[in-house]
Amino acid sequence: MTASQKTGLVVTAHPGDFVWRAGGAIALHTAKGYRVKIACLSYGERGESQFAWKKAGVSMAEVKEQRRDEAQRAAELLGAEIEFFDAGDYPLRGTQAILDRLVDINHELKPAFVLTHALADPYNIDHPEATRLAQEARIIAQAMGHKPDPTRAYSAPPVFLFEPHQPEQCDYKPNVILNIDDVWEKKRAAFEILAAQKHLWEYYTRVALNRGMQGGRNSGRSMTYGEAYQRLFPMVLEELA
Amino acid sequence: MTASQKTGLVVTAHPGDFVWRAGGAIALHTAKGYRVKIACLSYGERGESQFAWKKAGVSMAEVKEQRRDEAQRAAELLGAEIEFFDAGDYPLRGTQAILDRLVDINHELKPAFVLTHALADPYNIDHPEATRLAQEARIIAQAMGHKPDPTRAYSAPPVFLFEPHQPEQCDYKPNVILNIDDVWEKKRAAFEILAAQKHLWEYYTRVALNRGMQGGRNSGRSMTYGEAYQRLFPMVLEELA
Amino acid sequence: MTASQKTGLVVTAHPGDFVWRAGGAIALHTAKGYRVKIACLSYGERGESQFAWKKAGVSMAEVKEQRRDEAQRAAELLGAEIEFFDAGDYPLRGTQAILDRLVDINHELKPAFVLTHALADPYNIDHPEATRLAQEARIIAQAMGHKPDPTRAYSAPPVFLFEPHQPEQCDYKPNVILNIDDVWEKKRAAFEILAAQKHLWEYYTRVALNRGMQGGRNSGRSMTYGEAYQRLFPMVLEELA
Amino acid sequence: MTASQKTGLVVTAHPGDFVWRAGGAIALHTAKGYRVKIACLSYGERGESQFAWKKAGVSMAEVKEQRRDEAQRAAELLGAEIEFFDAGDYPLRGTQAILDRLVDINHELKPAFVLTHALADPYNIDHPEATRLAQEARIIAQAMGHKPDPTRAYSAPPVFLFEPHQPEQCDYKPNVILNIDDVWEKKRAAFEILAAQKHLWEYYTRVALNRGMQGGRNSGRSMTYGEAYQRLFPMVLEELA
Amino acid sequence: MTASQKTGLVVTAHPGDFVWRAGGAIALHTAKGYRVKIACLSYGERGESQFAWKKAGVSMAEVKEQRRDEAQRAAELLGAEIEFFDAGDYPLRGTQAILDRLVDINHELKPAFVLTHALADPYNIDHPEATRLAQEARIIAQAMGHKPDPTRAYSAPPVFLFEPHQPEQCDYKPNVILNIDDVWEKKRAAFEILAAQKHLWEYYTRVALNRGMQGGRNSGRSMTYGEAYQRLFPMVLEELA
Amino acid sequence: MTASQKTGLVVTAHPGDFVWRAGGAIALHTAKGYRVKIACLSYGERGESQFAWKKAGVSMAEVKEQRRDEAQRAAELLGAEIEFFDAGDYPLRGTQAILDRLVDINHELKPAFVLTHALADPYNIDHPEATRLAQEARIIAQAMGHKPDPTRAYSAPPVFLFEPHQPEQCDYKPNVILNIDDVWEKKRAAFEILAAQKHLWEYYTRVALNRGMQGGRNSGRSMTYGEAYQRLFPMVLEELA
Repeated sequence: MTASQKTGLVVTAHPGDFVWRAGGAIALHTAKGYRVKIACLSYGERGESQFAWKKAGVSMAEVKEQRRDEAQRAAELLGAEIEFFDAGDYPLRGTQAILDRLVDINHELKPAFVLTHALADPYNIDHPEATRLAQEARIIAQAMGHKPDPTRAYSAPPVFLFEPHQPEQCDYKPNVILNIDDVWEKKRAAFEILAAQKHLWEYYTRVALNRGMQGGRNSGRSMTYGEAYQRLFPMVLEELA
Repeated sequence: MTASQKTGLVVTAHPGDFVWRAGGAIALHTAKGYRVKIACLSYGERGESQFAWKKAGVSMAEVKEQRRDEAQRAAELLGAEIEFFDAGDYPLRGTQAILDRLVDINHELKPAFVLTHALADPYNIDHPEATRLAQEARIIAQAMGHKPDPTRAYSAPPVFLFEPHQPEQCDYKPNVILNIDDVWEKKRAAFEILAAQKHLWEYYTRVALNRGMQGGRNSGRSMTYGEAYQRLFPMVLEELA
Repeated sequence: MTASQKTGLVVTAHPGDFVWRAGGAIALHTAKGYRVKIACLSYGERGESQFAWKKAGVSMAEVKEQRRDEAQRAAELLGAEIEFFDAGDYPLRGTQAILDRLVDINHELKPAFVLTHALADPYNIDHPEATRLAQEARIIAQAMGHKPDPTRAYSAPPVFLFEPHQPEQCDYKPNVILNIDDVWEKKRAAFEILAAQKHLWEYYTRVALNRGMQGGRNSGRSMTYGEAYQRLFPMVLEELA
Repeated sequence: MTASQKTGLVVTAHPGDFVWRAGGAIALHTAKGYRVKIACLSYGERGESQFAWKKAGVSMAEVKEQRRDEAQRAAELLGAEIEFFDAGDYPLRGTQAILDRLVDINHELKPAFVLTHALADPYNIDHPEATRLAQEARIIAQAMGHKPDPTRAYSAPPVFLFEPHQPEQCDYKPNVILNIDDVWEKKRAAFEILAAQKHLWEYYTRVALNRGMQGGRNSGRSMTYGEAYQRLFPMVLEELA
Repeated sequence: MTASQKTGLVVTAHPGDFVWRAGGAIALHTAKGYRVKIACLSYGERGESQFAWKKAGVSMAEVKEQRRDEAQRAAELLGAEIEFFDAGDYPLRGTQAILDRLVDINHELKPAFVLTHALADPYNIDHPEATRLAQEARIIAQAMGHKPDPTRAYSAPPVFLFEPHQPEQCDYKPNVILNIDDVWEKKRAAFEILAAQKHLWEYYTRVALNRGMQGGRNSGRSMTYGEAYQRLFPMVLEELA
Repeated sequence: MTASQKTGLVVTAHPGDFVWRAGGAIALHTAKGYRVKIACLSYGERGESQFAWKKAGVSMAEVKEQRRDEAQRAAELLGAEIEFFDAGDYPLRGTQAILDRLVDINHELKPAFVLTHALADPYNIDHPEATRLAQEARIIAQAMGHKPDPTRAYSAPPVFLFEPHQPEQCDYKPNVILNIDDVWEKKRAAFEILAAQKHLWEYYTRVALNRGMQGGRNSGRSMTYGEAYQRLFPMVLEELA
């Protein structure tokens, strides 16, 4: 990482999430030269590994290992680093150690943006827990008195929330559509690493196409594939158009 | 207007509104070379001319003339064109002719952004009426079958809502803070043209300073004066930072 | 009306509304010496006169007359003045003349409070129309340039919204419970004037009892009958307890 | 229509809307023997006829005729009646005559359900106007004193709101997913009658597939194609499962 | 429990809650042959046992025993099973063991519906804690990797939220009214077992009568006693009427 | 404290909060003879002590001591008692012991009002944690079975929420503006004790002036300095004006 390299941080509850929900943003920014790091809080070993559990006698360790391998390969394909936290899923519970490590990552990475889950998800208790951890770590990392460091600048990056599976049920309202046309093939290739959730490949391809059409309608500029985000916190602009 | 000149449209219920609420955006964009046009729907003759009415025997025509003159001078100072609609205030009621003219202005100007009032204002019935007209005109202007013109592109500009006087009572939530440091002196000079509302000069100076401090906190970049907006409609981005 | 007499204004779509929803407030304030005026926008001739229409051959004029008589008697019992607007119901549509008259009433009465319907009611289109008229008249009445009068003070009274029939469906959230124990018998007597809606006597008695119990729970002071209101606009206080 | 035939009413701003948004519900209920009537308020002649306007010299009458023909054929294919109101689009404005006719249709049809647009749509001013008309007509039709008829029962049907083009921007929250697997081919065939909006065929096919997958997830019962609705007004049940 | 017997699960913070808020649903479904189980998280020993504490020298164990006895008798009267968790009240805090047991109950019972508290209650911290536990257990019970069992079907039951004491303060919006006319006498008899909260017998009788009248108005079908619920998650339908 | 002395309780995350957000209310009520107690949960040692940390080699204990001293002096100046909890900040986490002590304070003080933070604050995780503790303690203190005491009255005081730094981002909607003209000089003097946050002195002076102008507009009574609050829970009134 050079002094001037821009960086991004993705905090995700399960491996599938960073692929379905942020694979485009990750690939787009790594292609532009950003260093992007994925904090993958669990392996999704209980909740998104239905197929793995169909094998008679499979152990928890084996399921985790499978999912870790998939996640590692997907991150590489997207050009990102990944760090695993093995926090467990269903339920994922943040500990002080997890939060501390996330604060340290904020200090090390000084991310230009943070991507994480929606604020609420009545279908999934791990998603808002990941969001909570991402937000708390971002805020604590700003505090001058947390591991005091006189060189630290006081500032915090914008946060963008991933699109959840059923957006309206999560009171999710996207205000950003990212044009991911240039990296769509990579995002789709990452889908195909997630063999356990094959039923979602087409689902999230359709989501990308429909968000793409909405992006075209909202901007007047042609585009095919989109990834929706909800940006928290006001943005400061020097020009409105 | 050269072929490539960018443009902006401001739809305002009363003269004071474009000064207090959007004077910074207007001055900033005209300074950058934009053509900015203000559609000033009324003269604010009943509702924001308390001082004018204190003169014994003053007539409605005189009050309107005073306010028109002030508005004209404020627009000039900010570098913008202004068109008056004389639609009346308290209450301002949109007519078909007003809407038609606003649609035509959208066709002529092809604005890169539209600025108008908040969606609701329980203190002022003219403000949401102006917003309704601005939004309807913007939408109708897109319709291929409204004064059909084969050269018309199908697209509509983003809309940014002004900060109302009591934002929380209007369910107003700013998501953009415009840095107006470079044009603050002009905005303040425009305040001082509005002699009838001297009590608001300091009020809106304080608003600008506090939005400026919030802008600095949200962006990590130093700034002094801000103007808040609520952007409607998702924005399409190619990069998140 | 003596110079110092306090006043209240009630703007109601139909006669039943001022009885079910505000009968306690009206009786309480008239008992305290307030002058209270009811602006009764329609006779409820189509929508709340089911029983009247069961009489073979009854005419619209007869139904209106019956309802007018009931409304007049209920207002008298509660100690209030009533002015009828005969604006029609189902649908009630405000005209310029109605609005003008309501503005004049605001000027004449200088009410210390305005009571009207909830902001929304998906079961009844006349209710929010009455609210709109009440709010517009209150705002226009403040404008210095509307029938200019140098003696007019610039101020507007607080607005309290009645409890609708199905509060949750109207996104109605009461923040005031008025203790109407002292006038309950009068309110109940007014119910019994409304012979056409006998099925609602017990309904609204139960509403009063349950709001009374809630009032006791929220204040720690014993009370039996309550009337709920949603106060719009912040209140200014000199002490919090 | 036999005495016991069930009926449904669809109130739509433009022809495309009843196809994209309610084609499944219409075909499903007509297949079950319901009489379904579509009140088609405009021909969508300005706003959803981009392709028609590309033909040099085409007249408004010709465009309307084209759209009317398409709408007629689509309604027939879906098994429904259609009545045109020719109210104009962009903007669609309800008149007293339109409202009166809709009330009469409510009286004639006694619908078991009403389908119409979402409550808000910042992209389209005609949609909420159609919703307003549908709701007002449904409410007025209940009023005993509107064209009094002693045989009229006092009741009003449930209302279901169509899915808009960008649901989250319309604060639309579906609470019903209709399984349209049995009639999907018909809905898709109706799409293909709308030659002017070919770019939406695949968009709304994807919407149907994704709502279908959500329906499966919410019910635990396998299904492929869904149509989302937001039901207004509480439902009365005799059993919860 | 026969293979085909339908089941229901009620997760309640305190004994009073299942009686006041869900007594009708419990009696109605047990009368229809459902097996209904109540997970009663606390005895309400601190917060809803005012009368018990008035006895000089009464011990916590005695108060719990009294409330347990009442709860047992009320459950029997309603035809339901009850399991006590003794989690404490004011505050009720969910532990891992409580959550695990609730997951197991979900696995054993495979409920066709889950009834629990509202999402928020600013008057009572135990209610949303019970809701959280009910929702988390329902979600975890779906995870294939939680106590893996190859025979487990992947699905989750609908959730219905009880009516809280002051619904509007809890942002509670009922969308279901259950007709409990057939079991009203049983529900009322269960009230009378709760001697400690006699002041609420009439309160909740009035609630049932008013919800009944609202049910009649919303459905057009006559009914006397209702119980309101807010259904979470979209429902899948095959027909709209 | 005499038997009849009125009391108030302020629960604050950090020392700055009680000065910026509630300094006016505290000084106003102590001037009226109230006993006001501040429960100061942390010293703000990490998150609001930027200047203190600039001194090379400063220790956590020294920073805490500095902030404690400032807080003590500010409380004295405002006429209030202060109790420190040393719960830590960034993050502040409530423990059982903290909650128990807050319940005891409620029992001892029997406050006529409770002031605390807003319900949400996406910029600061300690603020809603303080609110949670304040609300839980207030509720638990009402429970007859918590440290049973036969002399305890069953009632709970109203809660007023402080204005956060960026109100709209916290979904904060003030419904009370307290007139603090009589104590403004004291509030400003308390600002100046907080040397570490000098950049906020002018910010919160502007907030007070703008809330003051809003207070004048909402009440029609002249005032200069205001402090905004959001009152939770309905208030019971005997008169509306």
